[in-house]
Amino acid sequence: EDQKRQQAAKPSDPYSSDPQRHPALRVNSQKPFNAEPPPELLSDSYITPSAIFFKRNHLPVPRVDPASYQLQVEGLPRPLSLSLQELKTRFPKHTVTATLQCAGNRRSEMNKVKQVKGLNWGIAAISNATWSGARLRDVLLAAGCGPDTAQWARHVQFEGLDKDVTGTTYGASIPLNKALSEDGDVLLAYEMNGEDLPADHGYPLRVVVPGTVGARNVKWLGKVIVSGEESSSHWQQNDYKGFSPSTDWDTVDFKSAPAIQELPIQSAITQPLDGAMVEFGEEVTVRGYAWSGGGREVVRVDVSLDGGKTWQVAQLRSGEEEGEAPAPSPPPGRAWAWKLWELVAPLPPGVQEVEIMCKAVDSSYNMQPDSVAPIWNLRGVLSNAWHRVRVKVRMEED
Amino acid sequence: EDQKRQQAAKPSDPYSSDPQRHPALRVNSQKPFNAEPPPELLSDSYITPSAIFFKRNHLPVPRVDPASYQLQVEGLPRPLSLSLQELKTRFPKHTVTATLQCAGNRRSEMNKVKQVKGLNWGIAAISNATWSGARLRDVLLAAGCGPDTAQWARHVQFEGLDKDVTGTTYGASIPLNKALSEDGDVLLAYEMNGEDLPADHGYPLRVVVPGTVGARNVKWLGKVIVSGEESSSHWQQNDYKGFSPSTDWDTVDFKSAPAIQELPIQSAITQPLDGAMVEFGEEVTVRGYAWSGGGREVVRVDVSLDGGKTWQVAQLRSGEEEGEAPAPSPPPGRAWAWKLWELVAPLPPGVQEVEIMCKAVDSSYNMQPDSVAPIWNLRGVLSNAWHRVRVKVRMEED
Ligand SMILES: [Mo]
Ligand SMILES: [Mo]
Repeated sequence: EDQKRQQAAKPSDPYSSDPQRHPALRVNSQKPFNAEPPPELLSDSYITPSAIFFKRNHLPVPRVDPASYQLQVEGLPRPLSLSLQELKTRFPKHTVTATLQCAGNRRSEMNKVKQVKGLNWGIAAISNATWSGARLRDVLLAAGCGPDTAQWARHVQFEGLDKDVTGTTYGASIPLNKALSEDGDVLLAYEMNGEDLPADHGYPLRVVVPGTVGARNVKWLGKVIVSGEESSSHWQQNDYKGFSPSTDWDTVDFKSAPAIQELPIQSAITQPLDGAMVEFGEEVTVRGYAWSGGGREVVRVDVSLDGGKTWQVAQLRSGEEEGEAPAPSPPPGRAWAWKLWELVAPLPPGVQEVEIMCKAVDSSYNMQPDSVAPIWNLRGVLSNAWHRVRVKVRMEED
Repeated sequence: EDQKRQQAAKPSDPYSSDPQRHPALRVNSQKPFNAEPPPELLSDSYITPSAIFFKRNHLPVPRVDPASYQLQVEGLPRPLSLSLQELKTRFPKHTVTATLQCAGNRRSEMNKVKQVKGLNWGIAAISNATWSGARLRDVLLAAGCGPDTAQWARHVQFEGLDKDVTGTTYGASIPLNKALSEDGDVLLAYEMNGEDLPADHGYPLRVVVPGTVGARNVKWLGKVIVSGEESSSHWQQNDYKGFSPSTDWDTVDFKSAPAIQELPIQSAITQPLDGAMVEFGEEVTVRGYAWSGGGREVVRVDVSLDGGKTWQVAQLRSGEEEGEAPAPSPPPGRAWAWKLWELVAPLPPGVQEVEIMCKAVDSSYNMQPDSVAPIWNLRGVLSNAWHRVRVKVRMEED
C-alpha cells in the first residue's frame, strides 16, 4: 500500500515498476535492485528457489507485454522476428540445470584488502536453477547460420530491453562457438524452476549461458545479433574484466584484458557463519558450495579446521536426495551446476578460536588461490581465494 | 662406439635400442629415459627444437619398421588397419602448434615440502612443438563413427607399441567428445617440427591431444579403440590423478579421483636461475613460459621482484619475431601453445637478496595457487604454485 502510494507520487521514477522482492534478501542496492540471499539458505537446497536466487540488475526492470513481445535475430541470411509463442512451439524445449554467478561475488573480501569499485557482495551472489527454453543454436540455425557464418562471425551479441534514461540498453556478447556448440547448452530461456521467468530474472525471455559469468546471461532479451565484433556495450568493453593488482584507475587499459566469459573455480563456506560460536567437544558441521565455469565439474573440496595446516575431504552432493547414490557425472565439459558439500569433524583440541577454510578443485585440476591480495583488482571481480571463517569455541563450564 | 660395444655386450637389455640423446639434456632417469632441457634453453625459442624437447618415456623405445607398420582402429562399425602411407594420403594433413607438459613438471618443488613418488622433474618437463598428421576425428569418421556412437561410447583408448618385460603396453584414453570435436585438434601425428617424429617422440606415429596432459599423448601408437570405458592401463587408472594433501599411500583410493586430462594454469621463471647473482643498479631481465590446458589462452603474467608485495605485468610473446606485431589470439578454447614472457625492471633498492615470483592467468581467469604445501599430493603431480627464484644482488665495490 505504501509502495503503491510512493510509485503514484513519483511517476517519473524509472524503478517504479520494479517487482516486489522476498524480504529475506540482503539488499546491496535498491535502484537498480541488487540483492543476495543469506548464505545459510543457499546450501539448504540444491536448486535455489527463484524468490531467493540472487538478483543482479544493472537498470530498471522493464515490463514486457508477452502478447506483443518479439525477439529480433539479426546478422544472418534469414533475420527472424519471433513471438514468445513461436519460440515455444517452433523449437524443441531444452532444460538445463545451471549455476549463475556474478563476477563480483565475494567482492567484500577484496574491499578488506583495499577499496574497489562495485557492489559490496558477500558470498551469495551465486545460485543454481533449472532453466528451460529454446536452444540458441537451434534459433541461429533457423536464421540461416551455416558453416560459412564462422568465416566472418565470431560473436553473438545480446541486447536487453532494460534501458537507462538516455535509452542505452544493457548488452553483452559471447563467442559464436559457445553459442553454436551442441555441447554448449546455451538457452533462450522462458522458464526458471518450472515456471515463467520472474520479472527480476528476465521475463519473458533471457539468455542462459551455462558456465559463463552472469553478466553475459542477458535478461529481458530484445535482440540477438551475430557479428564479427564483441558487443560494444560498456559492460562488455569497459567492465567485467580482470587486471593485475598493480593496475589502478589511472593506468587501467580496458582493451588490454579479455572480457570475462568462463569463470574460475570457486567455493565458499555457508555454515558456520563468520564469528559463530561452536561448542567444544562436539563435532562441527561445515557446509558450502563449490562451482567452476566452462562446464568443469567440481571433483573435490578440501576443508581445513586448523588454518590450513591439514585438510580433510568434504562429501559432495549434486541433485540427489540425502542417502541416495551420488548423481552420475555429466559428460566432460558440461557440468554446469554447482555441488553442495559437507564435512562433519571434531574440532582441534585446546583452541578457543578456529579458522575454517575451504578450497575446491575442478576437473581440469584448477585450484583456488590461497589469498586475496595477489588477485585483488580495481573492479573487485573474480574473487575466488580460499574462503575463511573464524569461529569461537565455547569451553565447557567447569 | 662405446655405446655400440655396450649394446653388443648386453643383448638382453630391453633399452639397448634406445636412440642417442642430446648431451645438453638433464637426465632424471636413464632406463626408461626421462630428461629435460636446461630451463634457459626453453625460453630461447618459441618452438622447442626436437632434440631438447623434454623426453618422458615409461618403457623402452620400440623400434618400429615404417614399411610394415599398421595402425589398428577398433570398436567402430568399420574397423581399420592403416599403413603409414594410408594415414598420410587418405586423410588431410593438419598442423597444430601445441605445448606438451608432463603431469610431474615441477615435482621437485613438492619434494621439498615432503617426499613424493616419481621422477624429480625441475621446471622444464614442458616444451612446445609443431605437429602434423591426420586428425583423429577424420580417422574415426572413416571407421564409421557416427551420431549413434555417442549413445554407447564415451572414450577413445590408445595403446602404444612400447612394452614392459611381461608384454604389457603403455596405454591411456581421452574423452570421445574431445576426439570428435572439430575444435579439439587431436592428431595422429607423423611429423614434429616439420620432420618425421624422432624415435623418442613416438616414431612413426603418436597421438597429440592439445591442451591435455602429456601422459595421454600416446607415442609409438599401435591401436585406437572407441569404448564405453576408460583405458584399463595402470597409467589411466592408478596413476596421473590428483589427491588432497592429506591423502597418503595407506588411504589413497585411486577410484575416487578423475584421471588428469586438461591441465591447470602454469608458469615458471627460466631466467634468472635460482641462486644467480645480479648487479645492483642494473635492470634485471626476467623471462619464462606460461601455459594452460584445455585450449585456454594465457592472458597475463604477473611478476614480483619483492616477494609478492607488488606485481608487474610481463610482456607476452607467441610465435612472432622480436619487434613484430603480436600474433592474433586463436579462437576461444583453441589456444594450445604456450606464451613466452619477459619483464625488464629495476631491482628494489637496498636489498642483498631478491625473491622473484611469477603467476599466470588464463582466459577463464584461472590463477595459480600461492604456495606448494596446500596442493602437495602423494604422486607429486599438478605442481603449479607461483614459481619463485632467489637471486643475490652484487653491490658496487666502493
Ligand atoms: Mo555480475
Ligand atoms: Mo607425464
